[in-house]
Amino acid sequence: MFIVSSAKIRSRIQETLLKDYPNINFQFCKNIDEAEEYLPKAEVLLTYGEDLTSEMIQKASKLQWIHVLSAGLDKMPAKSIADRDILVTNARGIHQIPMGEYTIAMMLQVVRSLAEIRQNQADKVWSRRIPMNELHGKTIGVLGAGAIGSEIARLAKAFNMKTIGMNRSGRSVEYFDEVVMMEDLNDILDRVDFLVSVLPKTIETESLLKKEHFEKMQEHAVFINIGRGTTVDQEGLIEAMNEKQIAHAVLDVMVEEPLPTDSTLWEMKNVTITPHISGVTPQYQDRAIEQFKRNLHVYQTGEGNYMNKIDLNRGY
Amino acid sequence: MFIVSSAKIRSRIQETLLKDYPNINFQFCKNIDEAEEYLPKAEVLLTYGEDLTSEMIQKASKLQWIHVLSAGLDKMPAKSIADRDILVTNARGIHQIPMGEYTIAMMLQVVRSLAEIRQNQADKVWSRRIPMNELHGKTIGVLGAGAIGSEIARLAKAFNMKTIGMNRSGRSVEYFDEVVMMEDLNDILDRVDFLVSVLPKTIETESLLKKEHFEKMQEHAVFINIGRGTTVDQEGLIEAMNEKQIAHAVLDVMVEEPLPTDSTLWEMKNVTITPHISGVTPQYQDRAIEQFKRNLHVYQTGEGNYMNKIDLNRGY
Repeated sequence: MFIVSSAKIRSRIQETLLKDYPNINFQFCKNIDEAEEYLPKAEVLLTYGEDLTSEMIQKASKLQWIHVLSAGLDKMPAKSIADRDILVTNARGIHQIPMGEYTIAMMLQVVRSLAEIRQNQADKVWSRRIPMNELHGKTIGVLGAGAIGSEIARLAKAFNMKTIGMNRSGRSVEYFDEVVMMEDLNDILDRVDFLVSVLPKTIETESLLKKEHFEKMQEHAVFINIGRGTTVDQEGLIEAMNEKQIAHAVLDVMVEEPLPTDSTLWEMKNVTITPHISGVTPQYQDRAIEQFKRNLHVYQTGEGNYMNKIDLNRGY
Repeated sequence: MFIVSSAKIRSRIQETLLKDYPNINFQFCKNIDEAEEYLPKAEVLLTYGEDLTSEMIQKASKLQWIHVLSAGLDKMPAKSIADRDILVTNARGIHQIPMGEYTIAMMLQVVRSLAEIRQNQADKVWSRRIPMNELHGKTIGVLGAGAIGSEIARLAKAFNMKTIGMNRSGRSVEYFDEVVMMEDLNDILDRVDFLVSVLPKTIETESLLKKEHFEKMQEHAVFINIGRGTTVDQEGLIEAMNEKQIAHAVLDVMVEEPLPTDSTLWEMKNVTITPHISGVTPQYQDRAIEQFKRNLHVYQTGEGNYMNKIDLNRGY
């Protein structure tokens, strides 16, 4: 079997793969330019999913399986791959640990006034008159009750929070006390202390959250966006924040990334900007390769089911 | 029954007590100066525990029970109270929710580089080259495996951390994977990614943690002190931090509080200073009065056991 990787794999992980699979021929490349000459021989391709074209798929005439080491699929040449009936699997689920921890970190930094405490340290001021609150007993709403949303809810339950999820069907999801349908969004807005969006970029989520939604939320509420920036009408959010409709917004994703230097968001005291890092973790590649190895077992033996098998026509 | 409070109780809570206990005569005072004239009639006294003298205990000739609405007992006139065999109960356990949340908040803010991210926001810099790590899979050591320590361990387990506790006896405590005895401190130092001290101020804990202990820890380790400042040899810690023996120290308690303006700790980049607020929560008085009401039921009916009954001769 000939496996080509256009994703730059850490040398420590390369060595482990070579040792664990002595009968497989691996070709590790730094990028797709290096990988291109090996495509005609490749039976399996490892990629981050952003580097393939229809031409490359045609060139890779022996290709049976593409494993994408990320969760995003919008840059894949879907039709060419589907026409050839090439198996596609991806790294869905890999972001849930760092994104769950990020969400708890951000809720805690807001309720415990870490920005103010840090400023006081810079000013050498010992002041105990700082707003101090808890997660315990508060309510979190999660827009997008999937694998990541469920992990956020699991951690939130450990903090004795009430958890409300939202997904298309309203089907129940583990660790959520309650799940509502997308169209019932308005019913949960005034009940949550924290609203977290994990929604992907689709036609349905485009500008889903407008100023009117933030107006319906409680004044002390905190909005956290770790899904896609396009889910929010950014101008509407800025207006709502200026009118103090909610207390704080934590934005890891923006309509335009990197956030332009002239954006008013940078300077807003009640906004925390993080540079799309909620899913970043040093454990990323180890976990992604573990998923690949599980699927490689299925591919080699025909036993069991593939993890994260993708229907490219649906896009997820 | 005549109950006097020298602790300033919120008016909302006063009203609830008056309504819930129509047969009890409550005298709510702002402080001990106001309360003093009622002491001769008092059967029960509510106090924060820092305002009593031997003379007052003598004056309170009918006093049967003192409920202390805090956890600290070192300012109580222990001998006068013990001689009269007055029942003493306190609010032990009340700090575990905010202190558990504080500890997780601080571990997360360090591993997710929140200080650097906030500085980048101030500078309008979108940089994803920031050290980003997780709690998942890491090891936390908790010096003082009691009620607060166990709550920290419970939350840490939710983050899939390994938990090691330390107490006098080495007896096992819920949510700790392992508990060692005080004298085995040196054996756990090189195994922990986070070391949290919840130790109270006693003769045994005085300057327990010296420079040599921080030298034994891993370079990436984080030390968090939410117990008492005197547990640490502060100069030794400063030297260890300057030599980068560990990566970060989060100090909520100091040898001298407020921390003097000329302390070098304020300006150290790898030190986070918070002004003794790990136990602060807006829910404090509600929870303290709930504990009191549970003990009041025991006092009135003789049924059940007192929560947090104190042996003043032992001091806890």
